[in-house]
Amino acid sequence: MDNKHLQDVLAFSAQKGFVWGPSPEIYGGMAGFYTYGPLGKLLKNNIEQAIRTTFMQNMFMEVECPTIMPEQVWKASGHLGNFSDPVVTCSKCHATFRADHVLLAEEEAAEPSDEELLKRIPESKCPSCGGEFENNITRHDLMMKTNIGLDQTGYLRPETATTTYLPFLRYTEFFRTKLPFGVFQIGKAYRNEISPRQYLLRVREFTQAEAQWFVDPDKKNDEFYSSFDDEKLPFWSWNMQKLHKEPEIMTVKEAFDKKLFNSKVYGWTLALAYNVFLNMGVPAEKMRLRQHGPDEKAFYAADAWDVEVQLNSFGWYEMCGIHDRTDYDLTQHAKFSKKELYINIDGKKIVPHVLEIAFGVDRPTFILLDLFYDKKHVTEGKSVFRVPASMSPYQVGIFPLQKKDGLPELARKVMDDLHKEFRVFYDESGSIGKRYLRAAEDGTPYCITVDYDSKDKDTCTIRDRDTEEQKIVKITDLNKILADLISYKVVFKDLK
Amino acid sequence: MDNKHLQDVLAFSAQKGFVWGPSPEIYGGMAGFYTYGPLGKLLKNNIEQAIRTTFMQNMFMEVECPTIMPEQVWKASGHLGNFSDPVVTCSKCHATFRADHVLLAEEEAAEPSDEELLKRIPESKCPSCGGEFENNITRHDLMMKTNIGLDQTGYLRPETATTTYLPFLRYTEFFRTKLPFGVFQIGKAYRNEISPRQYLLRVREFTQAEAQWFVDPDKKNDEFYSSFDDEKLPFWSWNMQKLHKEPEIMTVKEAFDKKLFNSKVYGWTLALAYNVFLNMGVPAEKMRLRQHGPDEKAFYAADAWDVEVQLNSFGWYEMCGIHDRTDYDLTQHAKFSKKELYINIDGKKIVPHVLEIAFGVDRPTFILLDLFYDKKHVTEGKSVFRVPASMSPYQVGIFPLQKKDGLPELARKVMDDLHKEFRVFYDESGSIGKRYLRAAEDGTPYCITVDYDSKDKDTCTIRDRDTEEQKIVKITDLNKILADLISYKVVFKDLK
Repeated sequence: MDNKHLQDVLAFSAQKGFVWGPSPEIYGGMAGFYTYGPLGKLLKNNIEQAIRTTFMQNMFMEVECPTIMPEQVWKASGHLGNFSDPVVTCSKCHATFRADHVLLAEEEAAEPSDEELLKRIPESKCPSCGGEFENNITRHDLMMKTNIGLDQTGYLRPETATTTYLPFLRYTEFFRTKLPFGVFQIGKAYRNEISPRQYLLRVREFTQAEAQWFVDPDKKNDEFYSSFDDEKLPFWSWNMQKLHKEPEIMTVKEAFDKKLFNSKVYGWTLALAYNVFLNMGVPAEKMRLRQHGPDEKAFYAADAWDVEVQLNSFGWYEMCGIHDRTDYDLTQHAKFSKKELYINIDGKKIVPHVLEIAFGVDRPTFILLDLFYDKKHVTEGKSVFRVPASMSPYQVGIFPLQKKDGLPELARKVMDDLHKEFRVFYDESGSIGKRYLRAAEDGTPYCITVDYDSKDKDTCTIRDRDTEEQKIVKITDLNKILADLISYKVVFKDLK
Repeated sequence: MDNKHLQDVLAFSAQKGFVWGPSPEIYGGMAGFYTYGPLGKLLKNNIEQAIRTTFMQNMFMEVECPTIMPEQVWKASGHLGNFSDPVVTCSKCHATFRADHVLLAEEEAAEPSDEELLKRIPESKCPSCGGEFENNITRHDLMMKTNIGLDQTGYLRPETATTTYLPFLRYTEFFRTKLPFGVFQIGKAYRNEISPRQYLLRVREFTQAEAQWFVDPDKKNDEFYSSFDDEKLPFWSWNMQKLHKEPEIMTVKEAFDKKLFNSKVYGWTLALAYNVFLNMGVPAEKMRLRQHGPDEKAFYAADAWDVEVQLNSFGWYEMCGIHDRTDYDLTQHAKFSKKELYINIDGKKIVPHVLEIAFGVDRPTFILLDLFYDKKHVTEGKSVFRVPASMSPYQVGIFPLQKKDGLPELARKVMDDLHKEFRVFYDESGSIGKRYLRAAEDGTPYCITVDYDSKDKDTCTIRDRDTEEQKIVKITDLNKILADLISYKVVFKDLK
C-alpha cells in the first residue's frame, strides 16, 4: 500500500472540489459518508453515463426501484440476519471493533469464519487502550433499519439487485414475453459498516450499478453471446492462481473453448463488465479478471469472477463481481411472496437464470483519481490530473487573452458554438499561464485561447494538457478538431 | 378533480412500463414507494438532464451530498421536532388518519393549525368504521430515523437543501472567495407521510432537485440579474389573488418595477424556475407563478412564490417553491456547529443570502404523463403519448419493412448513424402498422421505415406521431431532418 500517494490523492481531491468528507464536515463528520463537490460530481456523472451507454448498447434497459424495502424482502433475499460483520470488544475499555480489521493483517482472508477469528484473539490487543479482548465474537448487522408509516419496519437496501428482481412479472410483460432480456439500476445503497475505511472504497452510503440478464437456462450457449468472442481479455482462472501463474491474455472464445467458464453467456457477461470499466476510462493494462476459488463463492453462484484494478495506493483491488446466480433469487422471492415467478413461452414455464454484473460507482471515481493524479513537487512544475478526455469533468476550457477589446465576448461566442457537443467552461481571471495550470489540475485536456488574431484571422490557440504543446488553429475547425482529439482519432502532435 | 383521467393515466403508465407500484408489488406494496420501469426511467432521466442543463447554463454547479445526516443537523435546520403531520384517532376502531385529509375538504387551507383541525372533529366520522374521532390532535414525525455505526442516530433527509448548505466553506474555496455562486443537487429525499396519496404527487421516497444561489445581501439588485428581464411570465401576486383577479402576463422587468417582488435577484430566480419547467416540456399556458400569502410563508422567508401547473387530473397544483431564505440557514448551522460561516471579501465578512428553487422530479414526470397522454376509445383509434420530442423516452424508432432481404441489416446501419445524436430504438417484430401504434403509445415522435427503395434509392419513410403523416426522405439527410424537427426549427408538414 502506497500511503504517500493516497494522502496526495486525498489532499488533491478535497482541495480541487472532487470529494469532501467525511460529511458533514462542519459537524465533525460521520465515517463513511462523503460529498461530491462540483468537479467530483461532473466526474461521477460521466462515469454513470458511460455505464448507462454501455449497458444500453448491449440491450439492457434501466429501471429505478425504491431504496427502502419491507422486512419480508430481506428475509427472502437472505440479507436479514445473515448480512453482518464480526465484532470484538475490549475487556478493559469496552470499545468495540470490527474483528477482522483488528485481528488480521490486511492481506489475510477476505471473509474469515468466526472460529478463525476467535483463535487470533489471544495474539491481539485493543488499539485504543492496549487491553485484552473478550474471548467472544459477536455479530453486527449491516442493514440500516427505518420506520415506515405508523408501524411498519423497513430496511435501506444494502445492494440494488434484490430490488431489481422484484418487478420480474412486469418485465416479462414489458419485454413481450420473450427471453433473454436485461435490466440495470444505478442508485444508492447503504451498509452500516462498523469501521468504514479506505476513503471511497468502503463507505456506508454509496452508489451501486448492477445489471441483471435473464436467460432461458437451456439457451446459455446461444450464438447471440458471440459479440465479444474476439476480444482479448486478461483471464486469471482459479487454476492459474493455484499454480501461481500470471493471468493469461486470450480471446473470450479461447477462454470458453478452454472451459475457463461453462457457458457462452457467462463469458459474454464477463466481457461486458470488462468493457464497462474500459469505457469508464480504466486502462486495459490496469485490469484483470480473477475467478473466485470454491471457498469465496456465494453458495448460490454457479460461477463467480471479479474485475480487479491495480490501484497506485492499494495495489490490486476488487471492483466488480460477475455472478451466475442461476434461479436462486426468483425462486426465493416466489417462495416468500407466494407468487409464481416464471415466464410462459410457447406453453413452457421457464424460471430464467440470472447473470449479474455488480459494482459500485464511487470506486471507479476513486480509480480515476488514484491512477491519473500526477503529483508534482514544486520544483517539477504543477500537478496534473491526466484523466482521459472522455471522462474529464470538463473537456475544453475557453480563455480570452485579455479581459478587454471584445475578447471576452468573442471567447463566449466560441463557447456557445462548442457547448452543445462538449463539456466546456469559460475562465477570464488571472494570467493565461495560471489558467492553463488550473485547468490541467482540473483534468481539462484542451484549452482554447482567443487572442487578437482571433478577431482578424479567425484563429485561436489550442493547448494540450499532457504534452503542454500549443498550436494555432481556425476557430471554424474547432468542433471537428476537438471531436477527433477526444475520440482519439487524432493525437495532438499530428494536428495540423 | 378528474378521476377518470387519473385512472386512465395510471393504467397507461403501469401497462407501458412507465411507473409501477406501490412497490414491491409481489409483496403487496408499501404506500408511497414506486418503481420506474424502462420507459419511465428514460423519461425521468430526460427530465433530470433538462434540470441539470438549465441550472448549469445559469452558472450553478452540481454537488452530491449524503442522504443521511446526524441528529444535530436536523435540530439546526428546524426539521427535528417540527416537521410533522397532524393525526386523529378513531375512538371506536382506533384507526389513525392524517387529520387534515379526513377533517378538511381538498380545497381548504394547505397547512391548518391544530386548533383549526380540533374545531372540525365533531363534524367528521372515521372513514373506516363511521365512528367518532377522539377529541385530540397528535403529531406524527415525518423524519425517517436510522442507526449509524454502533450507537449513532441518523435521519434520512426530508429535503436536499439542508445537506447542500453544509459544505458552504468548501464552496467559498472552490469559487475562489467570490460571490455570487450557485450549487444544486438532484437526489433522493424521504418523508414518512402517514397517508401517501395522489400517485407520484405525494410519496414517501422521492427525487428532489434544489438549487441554492448565494448572494451578497448588498448586491441583490445587481445588473447580472437582468438576463430574463424581457421574458413574459404569468404573475399571480398575493394582491391579485386577494382582489380575485386572474394572473397577469408581464415581463420580469415590469413585475420588478411594479414591486411584485423586492429584489432583482428574486425575479431572476423566479424566471429561472419557470424556465426549468419550460425546458422539462411543460407548456407555458399550463403554468402560473403564485405568490404566497403572509400566512403561508415560512417564518424565515423574505418572499415566497410557487410555480403551479394545471393538471388534467388534479387542476392547479403546486410544483416548485422559490424562496428568499436570507441568511437563516447559514446562521442556524453556524450556531449549532460552532463554526463561523461567512465569506471574507476585501476584508468584509459577508454571510450571504440564499435564494432557493425547490421541487420534486417525480411530479414533473407525472405532469408529462398527465398532460400528454391522449387516451382514445377503441372506436377512435389508438391512444398516443404526445410528449414533446425533447423529453420523449425515445425520439426515433427504426423499423425494417420486412425481416429479410437485408432490410434488418440496413435498418441497423441507419440506427448506428443516428444513435449518437438521438435516443433511438430498433423494432422488427409485428406489422409496420402495429409498430407505429406501439411507438406512438411510447411517445416516440418520429419513426423511420427502411424498405426496398432504401437499398437502391437511399430513401426511407419518416412518420410523424401527432399528424400520422408520412414522407419519403433521403437517408443521408436524416440527421439534419431529425435535428430540425426535434428542435422545432421545422414542422413536419413543411418538410420537403
